[in-house]
Amino acid sequence: MATRSTIMDTNSFRPEMAQNLDPKTRRLTEERDVLGPAYRLFYRNPVHLVKGLGSHVWDADGIEYLDVYNNVASVGHCHPRVVDAMTRQASQLNTHTRYLHENILNYAQDILSTMPSEIDQIMFQCTGSEANDLAVRVAQAYTGGEGVIVTHEAYHGNSALTSKLSPALGTAQTLGLTMRMIPTPDTYRLTVGGRNLSDGGVQDFGEWMAGEIRKAVADMNRHGIAFAAFLADSIFSSDGVYPDPAGYLKPVIDAVHELGGVWIADEVQPGFTRTGDAFWGFERQGIVPDLVTSGKPMANGLPTSLMAARHEVLEPFAASIPYFNTFGGNPVCMAAAQAVLDVMRDEDTMGNAKRVGKVFKDAVVQLQFLHPCIGDVRGAGLYIGCEIVKPGSNEPDQVSALNILETLRSNHILTSVCGRYGNILKLRPPLVFNENDVDWFADGFSKTLDDLKL
Amino acid sequence: MATRSTIMDTNSFRPEMAQNLDPKTRRLTEERDVLGPAYRLFYRNPVHLVKGLGSHVWDADGIEYLDVYNNVASVGHCHPRVVDAMTRQASQLNTHTRYLHENILNYAQDILSTMPSEIDQIMFQCTGSEANDLAVRVAQAYTGGEGVIVTHEAYHGNSALTSKLSPALGTAQTLGLTMRMIPTPDTYRLTVGGRNLSDGGVQDFGEWMAGEIRKAVADMNRHGIAFAAFLADSIFSSDGVYPDPAGYLKPVIDAVHELGGVWIADEVQPGFTRTGDAFWGFERQGIVPDLVTSGKPMANGLPTSLMAARHEVLEPFAASIPYFNTFGGNPVCMAAAQAVLDVMRDEDTMGNAKRVGKVFKDAVVQLQFLHPCIGDVRGAGLYIGCEIVKPGSNEPDQVSALNILETLRSNHILTSVCGRYGNILKLRPPLVFNENDVDWFADGFSKTLDDLKL
Repeated sequence: MATRSTIMDTNSFRPEMAQNLDPKTRRLTEERDVLGPAYRLFYRNPVHLVKGLGSHVWDADGIEYLDVYNNVASVGHCHPRVVDAMTRQASQLNTHTRYLHENILNYAQDILSTMPSEIDQIMFQCTGSEANDLAVRVAQAYTGGEGVIVTHEAYHGNSALTSKLSPALGTAQTLGLTMRMIPTPDTYRLTVGGRNLSDGGVQDFGEWMAGEIRKAVADMNRHGIAFAAFLADSIFSSDGVYPDPAGYLKPVIDAVHELGGVWIADEVQPGFTRTGDAFWGFERQGIVPDLVTSGKPMANGLPTSLMAARHEVLEPFAASIPYFNTFGGNPVCMAAAQAVLDVMRDEDTMGNAKRVGKVFKDAVVQLQFLHPCIGDVRGAGLYIGCEIVKPGSNEPDQVSALNILETLRSNHILTSVCGRYGNILKLRPPLVFNENDVDWFADGFSKTLDDLKL
Repeated sequence: MATRSTIMDTNSFRPEMAQNLDPKTRRLTEERDVLGPAYRLFYRNPVHLVKGLGSHVWDADGIEYLDVYNNVASVGHCHPRVVDAMTRQASQLNTHTRYLHENILNYAQDILSTMPSEIDQIMFQCTGSEANDLAVRVAQAYTGGEGVIVTHEAYHGNSALTSKLSPALGTAQTLGLTMRMIPTPDTYRLTVGGRNLSDGGVQDFGEWMAGEIRKAVADMNRHGIAFAAFLADSIFSSDGVYPDPAGYLKPVIDAVHELGGVWIADEVQPGFTRTGDAFWGFERQGIVPDLVTSGKPMANGLPTSLMAARHEVLEPFAASIPYFNTFGGNPVCMAAAQAVLDVMRDEDTMGNAKRVGKVFKDAVVQLQFLHPCIGDVRGAGLYIGCEIVKPGSNEPDQVSALNILETLRSNHILTSVCGRYGNILKLRPPLVFNENDVDWFADGFSKTLDDLKL
């Protein structure tokens, strides 16, 4: 098996690659010294983007690219309704939540109306990291416990607290003493007695995962740690995209509740109509979370995030600790978020994700028949994970995956990789991706695999 | 002495006050139930703002208010150059830092050019909390220590880590086991042997504070904790605004360095020309920090923050941990930040802060002669702290301070309070505050004090 990788360092430029770049790109990479060594650029040959529209972006030389990666521009790059809403509000007033303003109240009501009725209160932050950071503290105050469970390749944020809950950051990042990891729900590889666990269906697979929760909590308790929360995204994005069998999380969350914990549904990735089946990823799994967080797709790129909660779960934290986020929930961010939600309804991004997502997945599955390097194709709506493996096995092939990425980039298609071994193509375009875009991708992916003889 | 208060709960609406409100305001406060109990509104009679321009804002009834509080709208509410820059970039492209983009590089160079040359690398986040959270981790990686010192009423953010370094959040917020507090540098009250410490001048006062640092580090060490950082804003905003005698931090930071720690200059409040003497608050004190953070005034309300560093201090963290902030440093936030910086230069906000700040402070000092409830007036540039005390003493009078706030609000002047006892008016208007605004404030404040017979 390949050595352990991380989501963060697999698809990235390193300074020693600079000699191969054209002079302007090289100069820009060199100027990034000013940002210090923690920043990573995508690609051995980084892309210098200057324009975006819908699911397409353009570089400084005017070359058009297909965007098969950016979920932040959820309703499409530079959607005019979002730009207009933001501009109008920014010209009028931008202030904070210690004064009354209707935007935050209208949006709060509207976004909560997309959730199950038990989720009835909401707070706004600026980033998904801030939302998860807060949610963990809320869960700890409610349960009186400290212990948090995440999956083996989870990424939940960049704050001190959430970094310690993000094994995907790599081994240099220390993990929390009170956290525990359970295995990635790897439906492609997990076997018990030679039998693929997910073949047993929802119940077997869910029971296996519930068992892992029970083991983790027992280990916590043995160390004097009380269980607080299971923090997980229902599609397990950075683990490698595992949407099916839909419903497998039900027994898992039942176990979490039996053990006195809460489920924080991290909807940064599966939320906002992405899966095509529902507005929220957790709905596909048929469970109502205790806390819901989201960020990336919420305001088409304006820094905006949310933490929604059952009011009884929020109460112990919120009644004792004042929480003020200077920019969180400000009128401009709320106007942009409202415009995104309006567009999602008016342009039926959920229907589009379902319809185009199916065509998209079918197209990748077609290529799987021709190219043995494609080991598994998983997905829901416009979120597809495509495993690149050594032919005839399920062994991850990160080298080929990175060559594919780089060749796709040369063919003007942008995406990236995820998963423990950095070998899973993460196909996650803006929600306005259409059938022509699928054709573009399928042609480019086919050509790429042919060129690479994979 | 009054009982301990917090910056967070002194000027705030409570639901039981709703019966006194007009029906529309009452309805809006009730609708805020959806936000849960952690949110606080300013004023017993909350303000419903709908419009802003320069240093003035308007409520839903069209009433104009003087804004003597909001440093976020640093170059004035809805500055057209900032709105234009943001709109232009949002119409063009908004994406993240894993692609090359010139906005982040140009702004990074430009904002670093305002700092001492030793501060040569910079990273961008979305909030001041995120900047401080990251800075503490960077300081810990560099020093190998855990221990952080803050002042007794400090507020440094709302993340799990920074909340534990923010005693101002009140006693329900647990503080970190590895943090220590030193006293507020209360130049108005601190005495040794009956002599006011600051009377002794810069050196005495600084030595007193350096001694407090040494005691705190000794206590840390006694508990097996290695010292990492002193996290402080050079004007001690939430402690109560203590800018003078300028230079008193020099011996303090010298002690921090002797003891192996670093200074994180939290410039969320004193930075960006606020003090009138320099672009950054730390420059008034004549010291070069190891790490600099800022947020609020940086992009006129768009969620944008920074952490700048000496490269050798940043290195140990950044070379081992990848840090990606999805929205941090995005082209739209950078365009807004650049426009703010351009306006600060073109409109000379520093000169304005110095000139108008002096007139402003003089006006408040004039009122001090007439109203014995004004115990002390401190400030630098457009940042003034005004102590409300029991006449003939330096005893904090929070009740009168809150009555003043509420009456100022009725007289269409917005501000708030800070400090341990919530009795210090925090006068911190947009940087475009002018002489007419000072007149408006002085008249309204005078009338308020007369009305209240204070």
